[in-house]
Amino acid sequence: MKADDERRVTITAIAREAGVSVPTVSRVLNGRSDVAPGTRERVEELLRHHGYRRRGNRTVTRANLVDLVFNDLDSPWAVEIIRGVEDVAHRAGAGTVVSAIHRESTSTRQWLQNLRARATDGVIFVTSQLSQPVHAQLRRLNVPVVVVDPAGVPATDVPSVGATNWTGGLAATEHLLGLGHRRIGFVAGPANLLCSRARLDGYRAGLEAAGVPLDDRLVQPGDFYHASGFAAGSALLDLDDPPTAIFAASDQMAFGVYEAVRQRGSRVADDISVVGFDDLPEARWASPPLTTVRQPLAEMGRLAARTVLRLAQGEQIESPRVELATELVVRDSSAPVPR
Amino acid sequence: MKADDERRVTITAIAREAGVSVPTVSRVLNGRSDVAPGTRERVEELLRHHGYRRRGNRTVTRANLVDLVFNDLDSPWAVEIIRGVEDVAHRAGAGTVVSAIHRESTSTRQWLQNLRARATDGVIFVTSQLSQPVHAQLRRLNVPVVVVDPAGVPATDVPSVGATNWTGGLAATEHLLGLGHRRIGFVAGPANLLCSRARLDGYRAGLEAAGVPLDDRLVQPGDFYHASGFAAGSALLDLDDPPTAIFAASDQMAFGVYEAVRQRGSRVADDISVVGFDDLPEARWASPPLTTVRQPLAEMGRLAARTVLRLAQGEQIESPRVELATELVVRDSSAPVPR
Repeated sequence: MKADDERRVTITAIAREAGVSVPTVSRVLNGRSDVAPGTRERVEELLRHHGYRRRGNRTVTRANLVDLVFNDLDSPWAVEIIRGVEDVAHRAGAGTVVSAIHRESTSTRQWLQNLRARATDGVIFVTSQLSQPVHAQLRRLNVPVVVVDPAGVPATDVPSVGATNWTGGLAATEHLLGLGHRRIGFVAGPANLLCSRARLDGYRAGLEAAGVPLDDRLVQPGDFYHASGFAAGSALLDLDDPPTAIFAASDQMAFGVYEAVRQRGSRVADDISVVGFDDLPEARWASPPLTTVRQPLAEMGRLAARTVLRLAQGEQIESPRVELATELVVRDSSAPVPR
Repeated sequence: MKADDERRVTITAIAREAGVSVPTVSRVLNGRSDVAPGTRERVEELLRHHGYRRRGNRTVTRANLVDLVFNDLDSPWAVEIIRGVEDVAHRAGAGTVVSAIHRESTSTRQWLQNLRARATDGVIFVTSQLSQPVHAQLRRLNVPVVVVDPAGVPATDVPSVGATNWTGGLAATEHLLGLGHRRIGFVAGPANLLCSRARLDGYRAGLEAAGVPLDDRLVQPGDFYHASGFAAGSALLDLDDPPTAIFAASDQMAFGVYEAVRQRGSRVADDISVVGFDDLPEARWASPPLTTVRQPLAEMGRLAARTVLRLAQGEQIESPRVELATELVVRDSSAPVPR
């Protein structure tokens, strides 16, 4: 106990050593902008050097807020993840502050300013690319950060929650193989995201295990959005030897494939099977209802919220990266190969 | 000036008159629960009696938070409205706290507790039925409230934002009449919501103006959700003399009609026209893309946020109820009557 007490340096001591006032140290701790950069650096350096433990404070002055930040709120994943985070935060007595930073630097700056003005217990980012400057600023605010990442593995050392993409890609491919399909088209996600590569590799592994040679013309690029699914589906259907099934690496691209099928006067399932990835609510309302690989988005949100709330209380977490299981949901868009 | 000053009673004076301490009055003002009910009532009575003006305070101690409350986050309107509210709040330096109260009283109680603990500048409800107890408690907290109501006119005297439902129903019906349809089915929303009646009346008015007699068998009940659209669509298509077009009072019900059409081996547009109401993002991704009446949900959210922020600053608003214009969006699900 004594050793622990001795390690705890006070704000007053830091202020004295830095040659500034106590309120100035507070301003630095609260991440406020009205501190000269040189002063801020000196104070931060001393805080780090002495291992100033702000976390003890934080528990006392809980803001009862969790921040949930999207690049864009029109992300198809948004509402499912909000639902999961809100559920856990709500039970913990915390509000869920939802923001979109629109990938714009002005918007990000405004968001950081808002965050400083009102304080938060922790931040959950839904993104594959957490920018280093933002991460650095949050570190300075001493706010715990967790990434929910339905689209890849984040590059930084931030704790993150994802899903088993490779296994999902494999399951979808095995399902179509099991229905007798041998020419299976694939609509890929953005090549720079790890999750896209994992889904593609799952598809490849499925074909290989079944002894079906990979035909490169059956793999089309996409960006997860509807228009790219329509374009890729059209290209696949217009091949001389078109596939009998198409596996799209996102539900929205699968809906684009539906439209390509319809415009050719064909019918999904009867003429060509389609499988998606995500299991957005829309998958159930599609006509026919879409067979797809379910990412447990709400559960990923729940886990992220539990993790960030634990970090806010100074707890340790077991693993920096957790992947929840994907699951194939068979509906009406996949059927045996038509004769 | 003088008269105004004299009217401003202090917390100290209230405390003296109530025979309690100043912190107790503060606790009542902050809506905290650690005050005996009798004491709270006495203090609140005195605050009211002296016309204690807390609003002046509020402006100074802005929480920089706007609360946005849904019954359920799986509402199809949720993400669009969040987008609009977040956009305005963000620019005003405020965070958007999103909650779902799941229509459960325990959940509502928890939410009110959370709200008290963290303070907020204003609350936006997305609902047609703001419960009187909740409204009374928010009044006690002296928090401005605005209702966004894509589904009806709220019963209370709260400021609200809606859309022109009757005009939208009329526009959809005129569009189908213009394509030559005379037997037009209608899938209604919940009968207890004013917006459902307005959309139905718009449909009736369109038929009447065109001299098309109303056939009661062509009007089927629904609840805005997918399953009811499927059931109503199935019933309409199975009539001896089925309609050549179906107007559903929500997009989700229109998607249910799509599935009823598909299961009968028919094709939307080629065999039967379908029109929806809402213009959710899914309407663009449907196959075929859905002709629908657009409710400007994001803009409704923006207006609600602007209104609640103005109320939070003690401003007066011009009208307690504003309806934004709906607009027919013609896509590929509506076509001339097949010969």
